[in-house]
Amino acid sequence: MLRTVGRTCWVIAEGYIPNTSHGPSPQMESHETMCVLNAGNADAHLRVTIFFADRDPDGPYEVTVPARRTRHFRFNDLPIPRETDYSSLIESDRPVVVQHTRLDSRQADLALLSTVAFPAG
Amino acid sequence: MLRTVGRTCWVIAEGYIPNTSHGPSPQMESHETMCVLNAGNADAHLRVTIFFADRDPDGPYEVTVPARRTRHFRFNDLPIPRETDYSSLIESDRPVVVQHTRLDSRQADLALLSTVAFPAG
Amino acid sequence: MLRTVGRTCWVIAEGYIPNTSHGPSPQMESHETMCVLNAGNADAHLRVTIFFADRDPDGPYEVTVPARRTRHFRFNDLPIPRETDYSSLIESDRPVVVQHTRLDSRQADLALLSTVAFPAG
Amino acid sequence: MLRTVGRTCWVIAEGYIPNTSHGPSPQMESHETMCVLNAGNADAHLRVTIFFADRDPDGPYEVTVPARRTRHFRFNDLPIPRETDYSSLIESDRPVVVQHTRLDSRQADLALLSTVAFPAG
Repeated sequence: MLRTVGRTCWVIAEGYIPNTSHGPSPQMESHETMCVLNAGNADAHLRVTIFFADRDPDGPYEVTVPARRTRHFRFNDLPIPRETDYSSLIESDRPVVVQHTRLDSRQADLALLSTVAFPAG
Repeated sequence: MLRTVGRTCWVIAEGYIPNTSHGPSPQMESHETMCVLNAGNADAHLRVTIFFADRDPDGPYEVTVPARRTRHFRFNDLPIPRETDYSSLIESDRPVVVQHTRLDSRQADLALLSTVAFPAG
Repeated sequence: MLRTVGRTCWVIAEGYIPNTSHGPSPQMESHETMCVLNAGNADAHLRVTIFFADRDPDGPYEVTVPARRTRHFRFNDLPIPRETDYSSLIESDRPVVVQHTRLDSRQADLALLSTVAFPAG
Repeated sequence: MLRTVGRTCWVIAEGYIPNTSHGPSPQMESHETMCVLNAGNADAHLRVTIFFADRDPDGPYEVTVPARRTRHFRFNDLPIPRETDYSSLIESDRPVVVQHTRLDSRQADLALLSTVAFPAG
C-alpha cells in the first residue's frame, strides 16, 4: 500500500529561534522544527542549507530519514545563532514531505506556528 | 453547483499529541485533528497510515466521509502514543481536501497551529 | 503593473467558531475569517458554501470583492452555529486568493492560526 | 550545489497589524513579516503592492534581497495604518520564496501565525 510520495527540494523561508523559554526542557524549550516524512521504501539523504541576512549560507548539513519513517529535526541542534533571521533549503535524494513548526515560549504561555514548506523541486 | 474538488492522497508531516491539558474536555483537551471536506456526491473512504521515528508504520485506519459532508477526526482517537513524533498519510478513493490543526493547552492558555496538508497525489 | 492573480475555486477544510471570548469586541471576539484579495480590474463575485458533519450544506452565500480590493469576511456573520465543525467552498467568477485565519480568545490570551486555502480549481 | 528556487509572484491575502503590544520592542512588538529567501546567484528586486478594503492600492514599494540571502521584512515599516485589513502582492525579477508571519502580543502572551504565501506566478 505504501508508495513514494513527496518532492525532493523544499524551502522554509521563515526562520527564527527565540533565545528564552518558559517551562520544562526539551518539550517547552523555544524551538523550530522541520518534520520530514519518508513514506518510501529507501532511506532519504537530506542536505540542509541555512541562509542568513548578512553572510554566506552555512552547510549543507546532512541528515537521513530512514525508509518508512518520520523524523522531526530541531533547527536548534544546528549551529544557528539565536534571535537571528534565517531560511532553510532542504534537498533530498528521495521524495519526502517537509512541514515547518515553531514552538515559542518566550512569554508565560506558548505560541505555535506551522506550515507545509514550499515544494521547490 | 457542487462539484468534486480536491485530491486523493495527502500528507501531514508534523504530528505530536501533548500529554497534558488545561481547560474543559473535549474542547480544550490538547489534540491534533485532520479536517476533511468531501464536497462530492459519493462517500469517500479514507485509509490513514501513521508513521513513527523508530518503528514500522501503523494502520491503515479506515474512516468514511459521507458525500457533501465534512468530518474533523482527532488523531487522539487512534492508538498513537502521546508526546511522540509521528506523520500521517491519508489516501482516499474520492477527491477530498485535508487540513491539519493542533490545539495545545499544555500551558495555561491555548496555542493553535494549522496548515493545509500536502497534496501528494 | 497590476495583473489578475489567483484561482477561482478554494477550499477551507477546517472550520470552528468558538462560543466564548476574552477581550474587547470586535477585535478580540473569537472568530474565523476568509481573507480575499482581488488584484484584478473587475469585481469578483463569490459564492460560499458551508458544509457540516451531519446535514446538507448551506448556501451558497454571495459576497463581492471589488476590483483591486481586499475583503476579510468573518464566518461569524454567516448563520453558522458556534462550536460546530464546518468546512467552506469558495467559488469566484474572477481569480482571487483566499487565506484562512482563526482568532481564538476562549482562554485569557489569544491564539491564532492561518493558512492559505487549498486552490481547488 | 545552490540553485535558483522559487517563484516570481506571491500573494499574502491576510494582513492586519495590531495596534498594541506587550513585551520588549522590537522582538515582542506586534508585527507582520514577509520572509523572503533568494537562494539564487543574482540579487532579487521585489515590488510590494498593498491592497486595502476601501481605497486604491499603495506602492509598489521596492526592496532587494541579495543573492544567497534571506530578508525578513516587517510590514510595520511600510505606511500601513494599524488595525486595518490589507493584502499584499509581491513581484520579483528573480525566483524567491515568500512566507508570511504575524506575532500578535495584544494580550499578555504572544500568539503566532504563519503560512507560505500563495505562489501566483
